[in-house]
Amino acid sequence: MFNFEFYAPTRVIFGKETETRAGELVKEYGGTRVLIHFGGKSAERSGLLDRVKASLDAAGIFHVELGGVVPNPHIGKVYEGIELAKVNNIDFILAVGGGSVIDSSKAIAYGMTEPDKDVWELYAHERQAKGCLPIGVILTIAAAGSEMSNSSVITNEKTGTKRDYGNNMGRPKFAIMNPELTTTLPDYQTESGCTDIMMHTMERYFTQGGNMEVTDEIAEGILRTVMKYAEILHTDPTNYEARAEVMWASSLAHNDLTGCGNDGGDFASHMIEHEMGGMFDVTHGAGLAAVWPSWARYVYKEDLPRFVRYAEKVMGVTRTEGLSDEDVALAGIEAMEAFYHRIGMPVNMTELGISPTEEQMQTMAEGAVRAVGGPLGSAKKLEVEDIVKIYQMAK
Amino acid sequence: MFNFEFYAPTRVIFGKETETRAGELVKEYGGTRVLIHFGGKSAERSGLLDRVKASLDAAGIFHVELGGVVPNPHIGKVYEGIELAKVNNIDFILAVGGGSVIDSSKAIAYGMTEPDKDVWELYAHERQAKGCLPIGVILTIAAAGSEMSNSSVITNEKTGTKRDYGNNMGRPKFAIMNPELTTTLPDYQTESGCTDIMMHTMERYFTQGGNMEVTDEIAEGILRTVMKYAEILHTDPTNYEARAEVMWASSLAHNDLTGCGNDGGDFASHMIEHEMGGMFDVTHGAGLAAVWPSWARYVYKEDLPRFVRYAEKVMGVTRTEGLSDEDVALAGIEAMEAFYHRIGMPVNMTELGISPTEEQMQTMAEGAVRAVGGPLGSAKKLEVEDIVKIYQMAK
Repeated sequence: MFNFEFYAPTRVIFGKETETRAGELVKEYGGTRVLIHFGGKSAERSGLLDRVKASLDAAGIFHVELGGVVPNPHIGKVYEGIELAKVNNIDFILAVGGGSVIDSSKAIAYGMTEPDKDVWELYAHERQAKGCLPIGVILTIAAAGSEMSNSSVITNEKTGTKRDYGNNMGRPKFAIMNPELTTTLPDYQTESGCTDIMMHTMERYFTQGGNMEVTDEIAEGILRTVMKYAEILHTDPTNYEARAEVMWASSLAHNDLTGCGNDGGDFASHMIEHEMGGMFDVTHGAGLAAVWPSWARYVYKEDLPRFVRYAEKVMGVTRTEGLSDEDVALAGIEAMEAFYHRIGMPVNMTELGISPTEEQMQTMAEGAVRAVGGPLGSAKKLEVEDIVKIYQMAK
Repeated sequence: MFNFEFYAPTRVIFGKETETRAGELVKEYGGTRVLIHFGGKSAERSGLLDRVKASLDAAGIFHVELGGVVPNPHIGKVYEGIELAKVNNIDFILAVGGGSVIDSSKAIAYGMTEPDKDVWELYAHERQAKGCLPIGVILTIAAAGSEMSNSSVITNEKTGTKRDYGNNMGRPKFAIMNPELTTTLPDYQTESGCTDIMMHTMERYFTQGGNMEVTDEIAEGILRTVMKYAEILHTDPTNYEARAEVMWASSLAHNDLTGCGNDGGDFASHMIEHEMGGMFDVTHGAGLAAVWPSWARYVYKEDLPRFVRYAEKVMGVTRTEGLSDEDVALAGIEAMEAFYHRIGMPVNMTELGISPTEEQMQTMAEGAVRAVGGPLGSAKKLEVEDIVKIYQMAK
């Protein structure tokens, strides 16, 4: 067990119709001139944007809006947001969307406090942020956990590089979470979200760097819950209880609760997928499902007891007579693949719909190692050649 | 499932030697003139107080100190603290201790922002606080969870009444948690603490007012963890891992994480015990152990499925053939009593060492109902006559 810090100051307002409190909350946190940042047309079509604007109007708060954030959000849109925010003297960013919108909002909020510098430098890990405008969130996709996290991931669309930056200043002041807002999501998005939530937990679970029993228990509980409700949502997408369980799990999986006492997590699968996201623009959660089984088979012998525990406590594998630890661990990985298939997720890159060349795999592996400044992962240290092998296994 | 808010902004600094960061942290949160508030002589004898003062000195921070906080902390000590803080223009309260010290610190911090009013009015529920000085914590007992909670409990020693007050302004800015600081605690204190931690979770678990699966999973995981390590500490009190698991669980059990989606919790056992604490000055956790089994037997039929789930998932009761739900629920309560006995806790008031008269039981029952302004509990609404019956069952 390692020393740790836990800091999750975001105030969560959870439940039905909570988006009507947007104006009141922005005001409480000092916002007077708001940039409403959102993604596609669904926020407009559903009437959500109108409800949010009405709430801000009722609180007497000035607002401008900027839509068009895409999955794997672009630095170009961030620059556009910073310019718009400067012109309008914006003092609060309200993100209406999922992880991409929140991450883009965080980048704008950093950029606004140092408008003479290029905010991409943060994502290139060339400097640290000195400040961040306050951010509020109205969550419409349960997945990224960015609503309570300190991290954000931005893609430089010119170079195809996807990079993350984390800083406690970027944690949103409040997050409004109404599960009803997620009921119209396409199934593929819903299940990609569930996969991402689980992976945020699993990245912190599969480490060799210290563990706490209470953290493991919480992680396992979150994983069992998400698996249960991901399957329900696959056939019953408007189930409120299921939407709520998954939405709250999305925050708990990535607000560091599931990492207390360990070494910060493995995150190799995430870095391996980030390169695929940067090069092929795949859906993040689905991309994770496509690489995790291969990653797991490549590393499980390095920490067999943990993979056995996972198989038994999370995947419900029963140890029948004659099964070795290795058998149980592999049965757990197979059970995970079967679960991914049950919820319509891929378990390799072919099923994901991409087929990188050997050269592209080499490029992605080098990019992943460069992004973290050295070998990936804590469960097993992965060099470029290891990552290439994992991509090859995941074809 | 109900709508809920979750807000746990306290920054946790967890692990070995973390108390050396006290000065740096007080400074970061704006403290320049600090009241160090603590309990008995152990903080002095162990050298902890000297280390804390050295850390404040190194950061150039003025400090005065006030010790002598007793379990079931007195409003008289709070008044003394407010006077001392006024005279010294204190702008930050540093609590070095467990729940009693933190609660007393919260009361002083409220009192300092409205020095012309009697702070007891908050605990008498006659008004709301308008402000609160910033508070930092160096935790020395894992039990109350006050280090991350919004609540505090103060006893009016003149009237023998023990009352609670909750307000988000009272949540500490930071909590330094070094499990090593708890290794010298007497076993009875350690196990009373474990009982209190479990009860904070159980009060939120046994409700009829909505539940979330992910919240239940987390609650059950915390309970299993505390039971496991409470038994280890009973025979191996210097076990660092066990101290750490219990200490982190103490915060998670009472920072509202285990209440998300339900109706705020039952808390009848707590209120029933508070009256015993006010009248007989018993150790809080031990008092809870002495009343819980009787409370459980009095109410379990009102929510049988939940008591069955508890028996199976937390207490490990196996449903053998022929057992009814009622049998399983009762077996869970019996297993809980057996666990209390294994860690040296009482399961009734005789074992606790008190024997209230019928008249005293009537007085306590009336006090409990008066304290919450009506019937207690959500699992079953308890009137004065119900509470008297529970006291009688717990004799």
